[in-house]
Amino acid sequence: MKKEVCSVAFFKAVFAEFLATLIFVFFGLGSALKWPSALPSILQISIAFGLAIGTLAQALGPVSGGHINPAITLALLVGNQISLLRAVFYVAAQLVGAIAGAGLLYWLAPTNARGNLAVNALSNSTTPGKATVVEIILTFQLALCIFSSTDSRRTSPVGSPALSIGLSVTLGHLVGIYFTGCSMNPARSFGPAVVMDRFSPSHWVFWVGPIVGAILAALLYFYLLFPSSLSLSDRVAVVKGTYEPEEDWEEHREERKKSIELTAH
Amino acid sequence: MKKEVCSVAFFKAVFAEFLATLIFVFFGLGSALKWPSALPSILQISIAFGLAIGTLAQALGPVSGGHINPAITLALLVGNQISLLRAVFYVAAQLVGAIAGAGLLYWLAPTNARGNLAVNALSNSTTPGKATVVEIILTFQLALCIFSSTDSRRTSPVGSPALSIGLSVTLGHLVGIYFTGCSMNPARSFGPAVVMDRFSPSHWVFWVGPIVGAILAALLYFYLLFPSSLSLSDRVAVVKGTYEPEEDWEEHREERKKSIELTAH
Amino acid sequence: MKKEVCSVAFFKAVFAEFLATLIFVFFGLGSALKWPSALPSILQISIAFGLAIGTLAQALGPVSGGHINPAITLALLVGNQISLLRAVFYVAAQLVGAIAGAGLLYWLAPTNARGNLAVNALSNSTTPGKATVVEIILTFQLALCIFSSTDSRRTSPVGSPALSIGLSVTLGHLVGIYFTGCSMNPARSFGPAVVMDRFSPSHWVFWVGPIVGAILAALLYFYLLFPSSLSLSDRVAVVKGTYEPEEDWEEHREERKKSIELTAH
Amino acid sequence: MKKEVCSVAFFKAVFAEFLATLIFVFFGLGSALKWPSALPSILQISIAFGLAIGTLAQALGPVSGGHINPAITLALLVGNQISLLRAVFYVAAQLVGAIAGAGLLYWLAPTNARGNLAVNALSNSTTPGKATVVEIILTFQLALCIFSSTDSRRTSPVGSPALSIGLSVTLGHLVGIYFTGCSMNPARSFGPAVVMDRFSPSHWVFWVGPIVGAILAALLYFYLLFPSSLSLSDRVAVVKGTYEPEEDWEEHREERKKSIELTAH
Repeated sequence: MKKEVCSVAFFKAVFAEFLATLIFVFFGLGSALKWPSALPSILQISIAFGLAIGTLAQALGPVSGGHINPAITLALLVGNQISLLRAVFYVAAQLVGAIAGAGLLYWLAPTNARGNLAVNALSNSTTPGKATVVEIILTFQLALCIFSSTDSRRTSPVGSPALSIGLSVTLGHLVGIYFTGCSMNPARSFGPAVVMDRFSPSHWVFWVGPIVGAILAALLYFYLLFPSSLSLSDRVAVVKGTYEPEEDWEEHREERKKSIELTAH
Repeated sequence: MKKEVCSVAFFKAVFAEFLATLIFVFFGLGSALKWPSALPSILQISIAFGLAIGTLAQALGPVSGGHINPAITLALLVGNQISLLRAVFYVAAQLVGAIAGAGLLYWLAPTNARGNLAVNALSNSTTPGKATVVEIILTFQLALCIFSSTDSRRTSPVGSPALSIGLSVTLGHLVGIYFTGCSMNPARSFGPAVVMDRFSPSHWVFWVGPIVGAILAALLYFYLLFPSSLSLSDRVAVVKGTYEPEEDWEEHREERKKSIELTAH
Repeated sequence: MKKEVCSVAFFKAVFAEFLATLIFVFFGLGSALKWPSALPSILQISIAFGLAIGTLAQALGPVSGGHINPAITLALLVGNQISLLRAVFYVAAQLVGAIAGAGLLYWLAPTNARGNLAVNALSNSTTPGKATVVEIILTFQLALCIFSSTDSRRTSPVGSPALSIGLSVTLGHLVGIYFTGCSMNPARSFGPAVVMDRFSPSHWVFWVGPIVGAILAALLYFYLLFPSSLSLSDRVAVVKGTYEPEEDWEEHREERKKSIELTAH
Repeated sequence: MKKEVCSVAFFKAVFAEFLATLIFVFFGLGSALKWPSALPSILQISIAFGLAIGTLAQALGPVSGGHINPAITLALLVGNQISLLRAVFYVAAQLVGAIAGAGLLYWLAPTNARGNLAVNALSNSTTPGKATVVEIILTFQLALCIFSSTDSRRTSPVGSPALSIGLSVTLGHLVGIYFTGCSMNPARSFGPAVVMDRFSPSHWVFWVGPIVGAILAALLYFYLLFPSSLSLSDRVAVVKGTYEPEEDWEEHREERKKSIELTAH
């Protein structure tokens, strides 16, 4: 466990999650400002959130896996895909990144366009209970798409995982914006709430909904549909961060590169 | 035949079709609700239906093949790609899933936005006959795109099959919404009709059109353009579900994985 | 030469060009009808034309190469990529297909939405000369994208050729619609002009512009940037249709499949 | 160094950068003209700029690497990916191309639609300082996406680099247009400024912002996240243009082709 924490690759990955969430929140919220000259449409905002995730998963996915979302990180922990320590550091980095991204946007946006900085809130008379169900469904489809698109065991053509994941985020927004402003991601909700100091009584919805939705998807994907073949001790090692292939993302990358070079000669 | 029904992989696949159709119908219809604050545009609805299919084909395609549409399942039966039993179970799962998805949306959507739950209907004074022709054309292009994108015999670069198929669904909606609300999929039409109890006299159009369109595409693709090289007895075995490579999707997957591992060493 | 004409694969390819152009013109023009209830936006029409080409190139590209455009076919002839006979049959099939697609739409569209069936015409006071230059530029970028995306010599990652080509068509429309309605394709212009019997004095623009633009791209791509290494006699054989690898698309496919199977064992 | 300048492949690459920037600027600015009949929406303009980069990176990337942007070229120089001479020639070609593309559009666009030819300018009371920060962020995410998508060392699935890069450009516009008209590219800003002779006092923002943003991304990507394993003398050779694998793009391509052919037999 010590070794993982001490490794350079681990801190690179944590930094990548911080940076990716910062940029994601900046572009997502930034696409939804209340510009008096031309109010962005729901389609436009949905596409921006999706392209933000798609671009950052493409750019920084090779460093950290590109979670950019505490709900996804926790679900991957439940799915026995990452270590507990990695999950803790990733979630912290994501939350700090989201606050930084929202803060940066707050500073840059003109006062008359800032609005409530696209903070998530229940609208169209949605109750907290129904909002939670909506967020569960929105995040469930996203998490399932992420797990399937990035599964190294997959043999059918996968195309661009980053683009598929981004478009799944867009899909969620096309339905979810009307109900809750569409979170699917506690960090995306937390960042602007901190910066605007607007924690509504239903703020918990944007934690419970996405996390439950993503964990349900992880249970379905990693235990029912495509169960792992690891032994119990290997599974424990994954959680502890001492399982070899998981331990160090970059070393893993290097190894794959070497094996490719070997087969090429 | 017994063996296929009893296999875990078969029931996983049936469940995946149920789940995928539930989520597809939820997001598709959900993108077309009559929100008084901001009525969704036709482009927005078309993109949502397409991304819903694209995301679910990406996420659950490796489990069931990702039909999510009774017309496609029946056409693949006609094209000698799946067993009769698989077709029957898939179609049943899709119809139940579509009702569940429409019911879930009915419960979650506020009364003033529910409208007719985006049930398909002839509009702009389209006659049932012309509507059927339109649905045949819409589904024909989709089915052809599906068959070609997922053909394991294909040698030219395929990119992302899920995305191509999703965008083909978007294409259909960009033209079809004006005529019929755009079905291309009997389950998508059946779900909200059951939940709203609105079976118009022309409801048959949304069964006959898509099924005929998809079957025409299957006849063209699997018999004229790219005929199979199977013997008659193998073809019968495919229908019975006793043909080896078709029998068990997951085993097939495992086998391919193994052969890849073998070539890698 | 005889052999190519007599081959089943050759007639499949010609039929695929007919069918693809029929469906392309149906969906392209169909997305641009003058629906009184909701006039389609320019973005919507641009996306529809692009997705139509993208879907059909994905679905029928493996049969015919997916030209769906006389300007592209003629440019590939000039680029020494196809035989003269193939070019002649393809162009004929494309023109007949375009008329059939436009006619089908004419019959299905309600009278009050039919408008001029999206026939190409100079608008915003564009002169025929400038319109020709615009069409040359529009088609030049499309043709270059096609040649590069489908070049089997390409070694850098290509993604989905069909999607890239479709999005290049969308790009052309986002600029071209304002000038000329955006042709980039003589068949797309010819079909509705025949059905509506509207041949304006500037109809030639939609032949000269796209063909010149595509041929310029072919000269640049196939002679300057990536010249072929074929001998003169091989080049003549390509034009005659007696050059082996070009002769029969399906045989070529089969051969590649076999070689893949061989390397897999 | 001499050898690189004299090579045919080098001049092909420089010409490709000229041509790609010309076409990019033509389509980007062309999508944002002030057509009185139907003013393009911000979503439409953002998609057009993104598809223009995506199409040209797909079409001409194999010739020059598809920079189409002085900020990217300078950042690749800082990242020790290209030679000094290549950088100088590319930037010159890009700037001349941008002027040519803007000039061509100026000539073709009707006077009443020409507006200010979509020249970049600070809007919504953005200060030069904040505009520079915005441009740094916009270009930072684009540059990171480019470096990661085109990194030949990458082992995770990449999908279509050209499409990912194009969508990253669209993402930038969805946020940036409101602040600065969205540059991310000094050539895109320089071209119309020259043609319209409109150099505002804040024109420097569109040089400093993109170049600083892209260089920051290069420092992060090529030195911190994925440092090169080259020796100091090899690094100097890269800058000088005498490092073998970098020297000649086309030879490199040919070599890879040959090695593929060798492994296939």
